[in-house]
Amino acid sequence: MEFLTAVTPGEALGIIKSFPLPKRKRLRVGIDQALGRVLAEEVVASDDIPPFARSLVDGFAVRVKDIYGARETTPALLVAKGEVRVGQQTTLKVGPGEAVYVATGAMLPEEADGVVMQEQTRRTTHDIEVTKPVHKGENICFQGEDIKRGTKVLAPGKRVSAFDAGVLAALGIDEVAVYALPEIALISSGDEIVPIDVLPPLGKVRDINRYTVSNLLVSAGCAVHFIGIAADRLDDISAKLQEARDFDVIILSGGSSKGESDFVTAALETLGGKLLFHGINVRPGKPTIFGRLWDKPVFGLPGHPVSCSLIVLRFVLPMLTSLKGETDPRQQTVRGRLGANVPSSYGIEEYVRVKLAFVEGDWVVAPLYAKSSVISMLAKADGYIIVPEGSEGLEAGEEVEVYTFG
Amino acid sequence: MEFLTAVTPGEALGIIKSFPLPKRKRLRVGIDQALGRVLAEEVVASDDIPPFARSLVDGFAVRVKDIYGARETTPALLVAKGEVRVGQQTTLKVGPGEAVYVATGAMLPEEADGVVMQEQTRRTTHDIEVTKPVHKGENICFQGEDIKRGTKVLAPGKRVSAFDAGVLAALGIDEVAVYALPEIALISSGDEIVPIDVLPPLGKVRDINRYTVSNLLVSAGCAVHFIGIAADRLDDISAKLQEARDFDVIILSGGSSKGESDFVTAALETLGGKLLFHGINVRPGKPTIFGRLWDKPVFGLPGHPVSCSLIVLRFVLPMLTSLKGETDPRQQTVRGRLGANVPSSYGIEEYVRVKLAFVEGDWVVAPLYAKSSVISMLAKADGYIIVPEGSEGLEAGEEVEVYTFG
Repeated sequence: MEFLTAVTPGEALGIIKSFPLPKRKRLRVGIDQALGRVLAEEVVASDDIPPFARSLVDGFAVRVKDIYGARETTPALLVAKGEVRVGQQTTLKVGPGEAVYVATGAMLPEEADGVVMQEQTRRTTHDIEVTKPVHKGENICFQGEDIKRGTKVLAPGKRVSAFDAGVLAALGIDEVAVYALPEIALISSGDEIVPIDVLPPLGKVRDINRYTVSNLLVSAGCAVHFIGIAADRLDDISAKLQEARDFDVIILSGGSSKGESDFVTAALETLGGKLLFHGINVRPGKPTIFGRLWDKPVFGLPGHPVSCSLIVLRFVLPMLTSLKGETDPRQQTVRGRLGANVPSSYGIEEYVRVKLAFVEGDWVVAPLYAKSSVISMLAKADGYIIVPEGSEGLEAGEEVEVYTFG
Repeated sequence: MEFLTAVTPGEALGIIKSFPLPKRKRLRVGIDQALGRVLAEEVVASDDIPPFARSLVDGFAVRVKDIYGARETTPALLVAKGEVRVGQQTTLKVGPGEAVYVATGAMLPEEADGVVMQEQTRRTTHDIEVTKPVHKGENICFQGEDIKRGTKVLAPGKRVSAFDAGVLAALGIDEVAVYALPEIALISSGDEIVPIDVLPPLGKVRDINRYTVSNLLVSAGCAVHFIGIAADRLDDISAKLQEARDFDVIILSGGSSKGESDFVTAALETLGGKLLFHGINVRPGKPTIFGRLWDKPVFGLPGHPVSCSLIVLRFVLPMLTSLKGETDPRQQTVRGRLGANVPSSYGIEEYVRVKLAFVEGDWVVAPLYAKSSVISMLAKADGYIIVPEGSEGLEAGEEVEVYTFG
């Protein structure tokens, strides 16, 4: 077995991000199903939106020069000439000195260049008095003012938001091409791990990582397939890896501490794969494995639930982002000031779970200390901060970036 | 028809939040399905986690007083006495002057009170030399150190995170009680509205709000049932409301501008409902209706897509939060400095769409101006800011809270 020394977090991310990924699969989905999916095509407007000039208010379509200088005491007098209801096509024209009633959203009659709100008019028997002028274009949404025909409205790689769905609806696009969800195979490993519905005999514990890792991946927009729990034996780990062969990424949890890692690295080699790094200079989560097998990325995550989750957040999700085809992923962060000193070791990038409190207009960041196996503390945390490898710690009052949990 | 004047945004939220909601339905879901659901029960730990003291490293379980003062040049000598593998139950005891090899995660043998990392030991033929002392409890995760039996670990009203799922897994809880998703009936209304797969004749437009509103509601954890497009006629609106009768909340979009609102308010009255307010002093979105029908809340949202969406975010979601049973909803916000002046009118709460840019360690907030019907601008925005009703505008450089879009 070749021996690899631990890499820096930067090197690890470099190796992970430069891993040659397969061509992304695409599929077409209805716009009802598009929310949160990543677009695989450019959307170009085939129409002007709105397709005709519309009134933005209930009022009178006018020629603005007819009501120039109108006021309460010296109103402009116009001849009322019909009405356009919403949804109606109109052939009415607004001639000089004329006004046409238009409802909100109604099509603007020809030759009108402004709409006076009803509240700024008075009705006389046959005419209307306008008590306030409007400027050219006021209260009108012009044809193509929202979206011009031919405009590139959405780019490939954009995650579809509720408003993007609105844009697609406006254009009458009821189906779009999106990238397929990354399909992740998840294997738990370790002789001490039992399924959660089994009462663990003394010496064994329930499989926590299956649930934390799969939920983190699902939240990040992946489809997760749980393969099973592998015992610490070369044959069992190899068999589980074989079962995972058809998925885009293979993730094992557990099995990467010194004692157990031999089985994972040996299985990788036996099956013709290649170890790319073994160990990252981070805490917690140092004994992390990354390799290639059947041209697919394989992660071996530490078995401690907290270490395992933090490595997913820091090192696995960046690869999944590019596998998803997302060009502008948003990492939710909050900037705040440390409420206490955070000691750390030089040469190690450290992840510290924190709690956020909003105090007098500022976020105060309180570090939570606990051993790396303590999952209950992670459930209480609002996020984590990164103490850089080149730092011996952070001081109370320093500004830090908090990577918040969903 | 009774006449109601516009209310302030505070009054509107007061009326909306004090609306008597029905008892929330509950159901039991597997922990595979619990992510993002709101807990309807308290979760109390029935076990200690971990259920036994475990080693956090590969090394030797010892009595710490036996290796006090050990160092490279004057190591402590211990008798190696067997090994505990992970997953194995052990009956070994560490007697005075003895050491037992333990793998990471393995059960700690009795009477050990510290674990020395393997790297800090040397193996001789029968014994081991320890080159560094450990303090009491070092490298051990004690029984119950993560979760003590009897602890309340998760409270009702908590939205289940990936880490909460890990806590449930640790405790062997494979099913939990959660609140049912709020069931929302959505009706589009307006003579000008056509379904998106219909080419709109001149004067008509496609139904944008169906997609923006339903996606905002789905993102917020609701189930949305689209009833259909109602024409601006009392009989059609009444018929659609009847179809919506069995859902928890009824939302109409469109139909609340002056011309159209009569049909909605008339339908409410005809069916025995009651209007609670008509109009909120906000921009955009003033012509918003709220009422009660069959003891259910009914919202009449403005037809302009942008107004409609902003009213959902500002006024509808707060009610849905309590309908969902969520006790600690997190509104994603970012604090930044305005990059430009934002004029506004005194007496009106105004919502301004903004774009965020991270410049030299600070968020710069750039207002986006567009007419309220412009959906493409909303799709480009990162969030919105609120200009309070008591303000005549905000100045460049002022710190503001940005309510970010997913």
